[in-house]
Amino acid sequence: MNINYIPGGVCAPQGFTAAGIHCGLRKNKNKMDLAMIFSEKPCAAAVVSTKNKIKSGSLLQTLENLSGNTAQAVICNSVNANVYNSGSLDNAKRICSRTAAELLLEPSDVIVASTGVIGQDMNTEVILNSIPVLASSLSGSGSPDAARAIQTTDITLKEYAVEFMAGGVKQRIGAIAKGAGMIHPNMATMLCFITTDADIEVSALQKALTCACDITFNMISVDGDSSTNDMVSIMANGESGGTCLTVDSEDYRTFLHALVKVTRYLARAIAADGEGATRLLECTVIGAPGSTVAKSAARAVISSNLLKSAMFGSDANWGRVLMALGNSEGCFNTDRISISFKSAAGSIDVCENGTGKIFDETKAYEILREKEIKIIVDLQDGTHRATAWGCDLTYEYVKINGEYRS
Amino acid sequence: MNINYIPGGVCAPQGFTAAGIHCGLRKNKNKMDLAMIFSEKPCAAAVVSTKNKIKSGSLLQTLENLSGNTAQAVICNSVNANVYNSGSLDNAKRICSRTAAELLLEPSDVIVASTGVIGQDMNTEVILNSIPVLASSLSGSGSPDAARAIQTTDITLKEYAVEFMAGGVKQRIGAIAKGAGMIHPNMATMLCFITTDADIEVSALQKALTCACDITFNMISVDGDSSTNDMVSIMANGESGGTCLTVDSEDYRTFLHALVKVTRYLARAIAADGEGATRLLECTVIGAPGSTVAKSAARAVISSNLLKSAMFGSDANWGRVLMALGNSEGCFNTDRISISFKSAAGSIDVCENGTGKIFDETKAYEILREKEIKIIVDLQDGTHRATAWGCDLTYEYVKINGEYRS
Repeated sequence: MNINYIPGGVCAPQGFTAAGIHCGLRKNKNKMDLAMIFSEKPCAAAVVSTKNKIKSGSLLQTLENLSGNTAQAVICNSVNANVYNSGSLDNAKRICSRTAAELLLEPSDVIVASTGVIGQDMNTEVILNSIPVLASSLSGSGSPDAARAIQTTDITLKEYAVEFMAGGVKQRIGAIAKGAGMIHPNMATMLCFITTDADIEVSALQKALTCACDITFNMISVDGDSSTNDMVSIMANGESGGTCLTVDSEDYRTFLHALVKVTRYLARAIAADGEGATRLLECTVIGAPGSTVAKSAARAVISSNLLKSAMFGSDANWGRVLMALGNSEGCFNTDRISISFKSAAGSIDVCENGTGKIFDETKAYEILREKEIKIIVDLQDGTHRATAWGCDLTYEYVKINGEYRS
Repeated sequence: MNINYIPGGVCAPQGFTAAGIHCGLRKNKNKMDLAMIFSEKPCAAAVVSTKNKIKSGSLLQTLENLSGNTAQAVICNSVNANVYNSGSLDNAKRICSRTAAELLLEPSDVIVASTGVIGQDMNTEVILNSIPVLASSLSGSGSPDAARAIQTTDITLKEYAVEFMAGGVKQRIGAIAKGAGMIHPNMATMLCFITTDADIEVSALQKALTCACDITFNMISVDGDSSTNDMVSIMANGESGGTCLTVDSEDYRTFLHALVKVTRYLARAIAADGEGATRLLECTVIGAPGSTVAKSAARAVISSNLLKSAMFGSDANWGRVLMALGNSEGCFNTDRISISFKSAAGSIDVCENGTGKIFDETKAYEILREKEIKIIVDLQDGTHRATAWGCDLTYEYVKINGEYRS
């Protein structure tokens, strides 16, 4: 199964264009704040969204729009979260209507998203007035601009695309994403807009998206906080031709693997670019009695503030891995746990079969000074495994979030 | 109901003595590392302990010892957590035996506790050899030494005692506590040893302790991490005389109130002295449809890293209160929430009936610069309420925990 990286982001799949502009919501004129993605043809569409009980008007409107399982455009601002302000749902409806009018679609074919500060009245007029300019900026090379325009405190640009054979033809999946803060397992965790020229039944599309999110975006944590706005959407326009993929197609697995490759790349990029992060943490739990136990154990480790602080200090304080495992949900034998740290600088076993090992602290420090740290936990209580990604907790995280609104 | 503060800590109740020494586990000779509390008479005893699946040998041994519901002494070291090291349970047994031999008790009448680094072999001999000196240091003025000797990264001394009338006589409850890191709701959260000269049935004692922990220690969070070692114990020696209290006694409520006064004082002190903290945060949720909903909402607010960082920066970013409420467990109407901030510098409404308010940012900043910040949330969806305590997230927390073992 060949699934290869290609450039182009959300515009890599045929028939998609994108754009990002500075519409004026953000004071800094050098930072874009409004993005659009457009498909020439109608798309099958699916969405996965936040588990937060409080949802922005934008997300609620998108969930209503996608009840028909079709979409043709995405519009997203990155300044105002459009939640707990006056008329948030109405704001979202107006943005959908104006976008639809400009692009000659139905308003229900627009995916509307927002991120930024909560509870502030939104200057919706500024967005509405910018939609013609934004639409006229749409181009096949617009993915990086769109990717920049959906970001808040991100540092790295997050876009990715792959090409693969399915349904007898070459197909492509592309995506842009926004992460940085309020990133936590078990919800959509951030914004990610995915495009594909695959021809795929909507039920298969939703199933693939849910599955891919479950093992990638839902396995990352930056700070344990889940946003009111976050969503992952996918639009499939069928432009690649080929046989229509269904859940039973032989090539459905290929499509799913390609989608997971895209979402895993972006999930890791989001974790590595967590607010203030200096290190990417990857925890793999093996030997678990069930996959839910494995997942919750891996997530508990990369979510612990104490462990995240220790990793910032390159301190092999594996007792904090143990403590986090003990706090995770699910039952497993706690007497036989083994723990290792691994990076480009080597690998070191620090706990074996339930007892701490005497280890070379200098070597451990060298290993933990690298940019990517792997924490391997063997519960020795079964055959299931899971991987989760996070980042260290740093002075800079506190600084960024002590001053976010300023 | 008069419940008045008195000095003396764990030695305030009649018949209790305490001591703290430097036994040598800790390199720094100026910092004590081993504490003892002793009652001349046998005591009814109860314990509440961590929900972490992984428990230290000390805690496991204490749980076994207290199955008989009696105790007469506490011994605790603050350097080695005695978990996931070789022979942790055996270490605990040996410490109980030596303590018992020295104090002429049964080993099962010893409460053994430990805190410190996980997974390191313990120099148990050093502890055993120090027990005679420790026992000979016991005195009626030893509470501050014992309080210091159980602490790791705490800055403030945590002891408290009260006096009240119950069962026809004056009774006293005293306690010492250790907090600082790995503090999180829904487990014992830290070490706290409570003494009382009340005469009280063991079932009433356990019920009162569980109830008091539930609304005080289980409502604080410093970093969302639960330790493998933590416990709250109480010993009641009946020295005050008076009628024996039972759950049905009229004065049981007085005893419970006095106990809650002690545990609430110490819970707040632990939150205020959270690792690196500069501010005590108190979140009160009112108007909740149930008490579990109220508790989980209040805890979610004071547990959010994003909110804790905003409070460090004195930033009235109430959207993070809202986000945390939305992530809490339990169902409530999310459309009518009101939020206010309050401190010694005044009070300000920032969100009312589900919509953000325009407020004076300078005034908000003045309010949030104080050392104690109250966050008041009205869900307007019922009559239940709960309060939780936490602290801000600071550079110092990251610094302390990046270097803890060094």
